[in-house]
Amino acid sequence: SEPEDETTQSGIEPELDNVVDFWLKYSHDTVHGGFFTCIGRDGKVYDELKYVWLQGRQVWMYCRLYRTMDRFRKPEILEAAKAGGAFLRKFARVSSGGSGPWKCAFCLTRDGKAVKIQRTIFSECFYIMAMDELSRVTGDKDMQLEAEQMMQQLIYWVREDSSDLGRPQLSGDVPTNSMAVPMMLLCLVQQLSEGRGQEVVQKYRELGSWCVQQTLQHIQRDGTAILENVSLEGAELPGCQGRLQNPGHALEAGWFLLQFSAERGDEELQRTAIEKFVELPYQYGWDKEHGGLFYFLDVDGHCPTQLEWSMKLWWPHCEALIAFLMAYSQTKRPELLERFSQVYEYIFSHFPDAKSGEWFGYLTQEGKVALDFKGGPFKGFFHVPRCLYMCERILDDLLTNKD
Amino acid sequence: SEPEDETTQSGIEPELDNVVDFWLKYSHDTVHGGFFTCIGRDGKVYDELKYVWLQGRQVWMYCRLYRTMDRFRKPEILEAAKAGGAFLRKFARVSSGGSGPWKCAFCLTRDGKAVKIQRTIFSECFYIMAMDELSRVTGDKDMQLEAEQMMQQLIYWVREDSSDLGRPQLSGDVPTNSMAVPMMLLCLVQQLSEGRGQEVVQKYRELGSWCVQQTLQHIQRDGTAILENVSLEGAELPGCQGRLQNPGHALEAGWFLLQFSAERGDEELQRTAIEKFVELPYQYGWDKEHGGLFYFLDVDGHCPTQLEWSMKLWWPHCEALIAFLMAYSQTKRPELLERFSQVYEYIFSHFPDAKSGEWFGYLTQEGKVALDFKGGPFKGFFHVPRCLYMCERILDDLLTNKD
Repeated sequence: SEPEDETTQSGIEPELDNVVDFWLKYSHDTVHGGFFTCIGRDGKVYDELKYVWLQGRQVWMYCRLYRTMDRFRKPEILEAAKAGGAFLRKFARVSSGGSGPWKCAFCLTRDGKAVKIQRTIFSECFYIMAMDELSRVTGDKDMQLEAEQMMQQLIYWVREDSSDLGRPQLSGDVPTNSMAVPMMLLCLVQQLSEGRGQEVVQKYRELGSWCVQQTLQHIQRDGTAILENVSLEGAELPGCQGRLQNPGHALEAGWFLLQFSAERGDEELQRTAIEKFVELPYQYGWDKEHGGLFYFLDVDGHCPTQLEWSMKLWWPHCEALIAFLMAYSQTKRPELLERFSQVYEYIFSHFPDAKSGEWFGYLTQEGKVALDFKGGPFKGFFHVPRCLYMCERILDDLLTNKD
Repeated sequence: SEPEDETTQSGIEPELDNVVDFWLKYSHDTVHGGFFTCIGRDGKVYDELKYVWLQGRQVWMYCRLYRTMDRFRKPEILEAAKAGGAFLRKFARVSSGGSGPWKCAFCLTRDGKAVKIQRTIFSECFYIMAMDELSRVTGDKDMQLEAEQMMQQLIYWVREDSSDLGRPQLSGDVPTNSMAVPMMLLCLVQQLSEGRGQEVVQKYRELGSWCVQQTLQHIQRDGTAILENVSLEGAELPGCQGRLQNPGHALEAGWFLLQFSAERGDEELQRTAIEKFVELPYQYGWDKEHGGLFYFLDVDGHCPTQLEWSMKLWWPHCEALIAFLMAYSQTKRPELLERFSQVYEYIFSHFPDAKSGEWFGYLTQEGKVALDFKGGPFKGFFHVPRCLYMCERILDDLLTNKD
């Protein structure tokens, strides 16, 4: 099973084309701008709400495809990305809620009115990703500046003072290092720095190292587990929160760390990333009975309290596919390619919808489709195309740089 | 299948005994007071957090059993209820978060420090239930007064101004009549009024009628559906939120309305409650393939966005059992008793844990145990014992008042 195997690669490339076509066809709101994100199995919009995470992610993904893959350098993709960016700039930032002017809504009505604001940083993260990537294809310096300004706001919230986010300080609410935060900031550091001048690279250099260190704090139990939430000092927290594992999330952190280690030439980080964030989460996260990755687990084997803990979601499998292929491409260790193949088999025998295109997102533990929509509050044009895009690029590199 | 059938009744009474024993044995925190609520399959505490809804509910349930059923008039039950009430009074109310002094936390540490505050009214609702019922067994007038004072605060939040709850007013966030609110207030009106003097009864009389009217607004689509969320004017809302159905919740509202109709001698309300809130939710909510009630449905048949929509939870089945038995006891229509038997069969063949006692709470669509704990953030000493208690009382009444 060499990576240049025709069937493997020919699955990924046409699948990416199909997925792009699905969203180009069904998700554009030509009246109010932006993207519909609640899209049923057959492409029909079942709710007009516009989730901001997914608006930002779709702008980012369109721009990334347009910028880096010739076959997607098409006017309709650029125009859709620009329209999505304009919608975000016009409506996503809200000043109400006692927060600064840079707080973004979580959800908007079709015509852009704020419905909900989360007291977290993630809407802002995807806004930044969208603006930075869009500035790269349009050359718009204001947009790049806007992304960097919002980034400063985020850094302040995360490293200095989060009270603007609106969460009351409660004596029993211990400050937590939730893995999502340093991972996401690391992703943004890579986004904002890539190919930019030395000034920008230097600006985020220390932050990148801090994110890595914060992410590595989640290696717990003498290196035998990745835990989602630890104390600010990197110690295990009590209770369910402290014992929570999210294998897909650890695998996503894994390939973020692998990218970073390659940029900095850090071989020790590469080894840690593969051993602890790629191989380990697969070992404890893979369902030996039915296949696929569990969504949540408890490190001590208690039953998680999340009702969906045993379900098989599309995105952890997307992250696993990228992580194993990237780990293989950096090391050429055959067992990593074997894992890639195993995840690939699970994905392509479970998630794609042969009838209407795109992927189902939510399966039961046994692998039956549990929710059949293609887009929802948390599933948009992001994990599937990013996975296919990353895998196609890595496979192309392996094909053209054989060793 | 007459109600006095020995096997039916003898299942309910010993089951209630067993369930009470389980919580008496495993849930009491003799060090810090209050109740552990995260209790694993075999009774072991897997998280020390104390969820306030469940603290209030357990105090209420202990007191109700102590007050109304001879076999539970035991010192250890009274002492546990008093200790739970003391813990609530000492720790549940928090003044932070910009809200008034009557806002209750959602979750506390083992020693009573606030971990989380919800921007809703439900912690307060269960605090009121606890205080009122506890005042009935202790004769403590201060406690009754405290319950009534918090009730005034709740009424103000619901009917006058909710801004103290801390949710920012957003232009796209349309004010909604969510069925949980009038249902819960109706339950509190009944709790606070029962057996009290005319002054208290009069005080809540108009509120009771308002709650009923607000609950009836959820009858939609020409009487063919109960929808969870409607506009303040009682119109259907757009999107998933507007199309959401929660059959178990409608059934719970059904028996609240039946109790109310009996108290007021309102036969038209009785007919509406049975037809629209008991029989109708069963018709659309019962899974014809695997049995059991779905958790969520979309009235137009779209896939709900809640990941757990097709799971079978314990509490909707508890509510259905009470609703059908109460509807039967008020009408003697045999088909209602048949439905009771059907729900009873599903419950007793799926939820009780023969090995360690108490009930599982969360099954897959197919009826397999998906989460095996006995207590969690939303499952405590409440729905199971309330269901068994209500059914035992109704069956006893049917036995002693044969017609």
